[in-house]
Amino acid sequence: MELASRVLQGDTIAAAKLISGIEDEVPSAREEMSYLYPHTGKAYVIGITGSPGAGKSTLTNNLIGFFRAQGMSVGVIAIDPTSAFTGGAILGDRVRMQHHSADKDVFIRSLATRGWVGGLAKATTGAIHVMDALGKDVILVETVGSGQIEIDITRAADTTLLVLTPAAGDAIQMMKAGILEAADIFVINKADKGGADLLKTDLEAMLAMRAQPANGWRPGIVLTEAIYDKGTEELGEEILRHREFLISSGELGRRQRERVKLELMETVEGFLKDFVHEVDKGDYLSRLIDDLTQGKTNPHAAALEIIRRLAKELSRLEDSGKAGRPKA
Amino acid sequence: MELASRVLQGDTIAAAKLISGIEDEVPSAREEMSYLYPHTGKAYVIGITGSPGAGKSTLTNNLIGFFRAQGMSVGVIAIDPTSAFTGGAILGDRVRMQHHSADKDVFIRSLATRGWVGGLAKATTGAIHVMDALGKDVILVETVGSGQIEIDITRAADTTLLVLTPAAGDAIQMMKAGILEAADIFVINKADKGGADLLKTDLEAMLAMRAQPANGWRPGIVLTEAIYDKGTEELGEEILRHREFLISSGELGRRQRERVKLELMETVEGFLKDFVHEVDKGDYLSRLIDDLTQGKTNPHAAALEIIRRLAKELSRLEDSGKAGRPKA
Repeated sequence: MELASRVLQGDTIAAAKLISGIEDEVPSAREEMSYLYPHTGKAYVIGITGSPGAGKSTLTNNLIGFFRAQGMSVGVIAIDPTSAFTGGAILGDRVRMQHHSADKDVFIRSLATRGWVGGLAKATTGAIHVMDALGKDVILVETVGSGQIEIDITRAADTTLLVLTPAAGDAIQMMKAGILEAADIFVINKADKGGADLLKTDLEAMLAMRAQPANGWRPGIVLTEAIYDKGTEELGEEILRHREFLISSGELGRRQRERVKLELMETVEGFLKDFVHEVDKGDYLSRLIDDLTQGKTNPHAAALEIIRRLAKELSRLEDSGKAGRPKA
Repeated sequence: MELASRVLQGDTIAAAKLISGIEDEVPSAREEMSYLYPHTGKAYVIGITGSPGAGKSTLTNNLIGFFRAQGMSVGVIAIDPTSAFTGGAILGDRVRMQHHSADKDVFIRSLATRGWVGGLAKATTGAIHVMDALGKDVILVETVGSGQIEIDITRAADTTLLVLTPAAGDAIQMMKAGILEAADIFVINKADKGGADLLKTDLEAMLAMRAQPANGWRPGIVLTEAIYDKGTEELGEEILRHREFLISSGELGRRQRERVKLELMETVEGFLKDFVHEVDKGDYLSRLIDDLTQGKTNPHAAALEIIRRLAKELSRLEDSGKAGRPKA
């Protein structure tokens, strides 16, 4: 638990190493995370989402300044979906954040998809825990727009910002992706461009149409011009107002429980995938697939068989008193 | 198995009902699907993906015409991500396909996300099986651009088309989402607009950069003007050429096995989710979450506990000789 202990002492190098370990699925990283877990749950998590080019990186940078001015320490997780094709990150927008990189109370980390999207969601949860354990008061999670990740992020965040621009179709795109309803605060960036007022009116109309949420929060709409750092103060205040609301309504506790539950489910799924992966090494799975392609069984019956095998494997481990990660 | 039997006799009304049953997760639909399963695996599945507004619906419509002219029967699955916010489909582009709706050898069905994205992937797989069992030779699956779904579709398809337009940033968007590398054929639609040749050159350069895939297929690039039905013949021929390649190289069998495996894994996960959902009804899960939020346990240990409970439950069912869907 060397890295974990160092993270708890505020060591950012250890934090960076541990996050890399999570990304690379290093087995020891899981144990370090279990050790860190009881020390998490204190940070306030803010998700920043929206379509590419909406100015999320610049806004994130401005918000770092806002929270630092409030005396809070800040963690930033920037999610770059990368292409397996080019093998690297396409965007290098992080440069703009670098003037905060000398500030020891700001910790910035980019995460990239190395395989499929599921791994990224897991790494993001892990990185949030690490920054939380590191003692960061606020964690900003910025994602580049692509559907499922956004939805996962909004589940992991206490406050979700949706960044829109007056550019035609932006709001419609988000609506299609089902993201609009998850936003706690709407940001209309590039508000100096024509159409910002119209977009605001449209959003207000949509919000009025929407059934009043049970918790009673009415999402605010904040206009910003991120590149000129305009509207940052107002946006920061709106975030703090939302946090106050979550605390006083008891909604914060409910969201945190929901997040814990989600993580638990993901871990259960992860176990099962590991197990299936182990099974995959033998010819057992291959024979099941043969039977399926030949129509001798169906996915329902075959899945049940895999689960029975898992159950048997687990009780065998249990008996031999060395219950741990299931192995085929 | 009334619906399933009727589907096997080519009854489209039964097919439509069964697909609705899958979408609504009606328990009997699962049994009907198990019955149908041995009769699937014959249809050729074509995925059509790309950003919104690229002309996918019009191209799909043109391709229906192409395959019908080849004497093949066609199934179409149009995926509309809908917003939980508005409660209905945003797009109504299907109208253009309606002149094929009188043709009894064409079966068109739209699927919508009713909850989260995972359900849609499952419904799509189910709808493909139903159309396959219905005897459709070719199944066109058209998705509206949002990340994860596209990636799932490309895994489910034999041939994946990526529809791009010369509009700035289109290719970059797709690249970010990791979709570019999954395409078997690139379609540059709206080729009459300026920039089509430039996009083609860019794509060729990117393809040249890419490591030669093990299977040896070089993705073709086809220019179309879908609204004038231009380039349809060439595109259709390219699809048939890809199919020939898949068959002669043995890659078709490999893809189909991969697809079967994916579906099996999804079914295993579905079982586990059902089980957890059952567990959720009692206060067992709630107590585990309490322990987690209080730092008394960690997600890894808690997940292991849930799996042990599942294992115990399964062996109990096994003993009593009524092994079926696990219940808490």
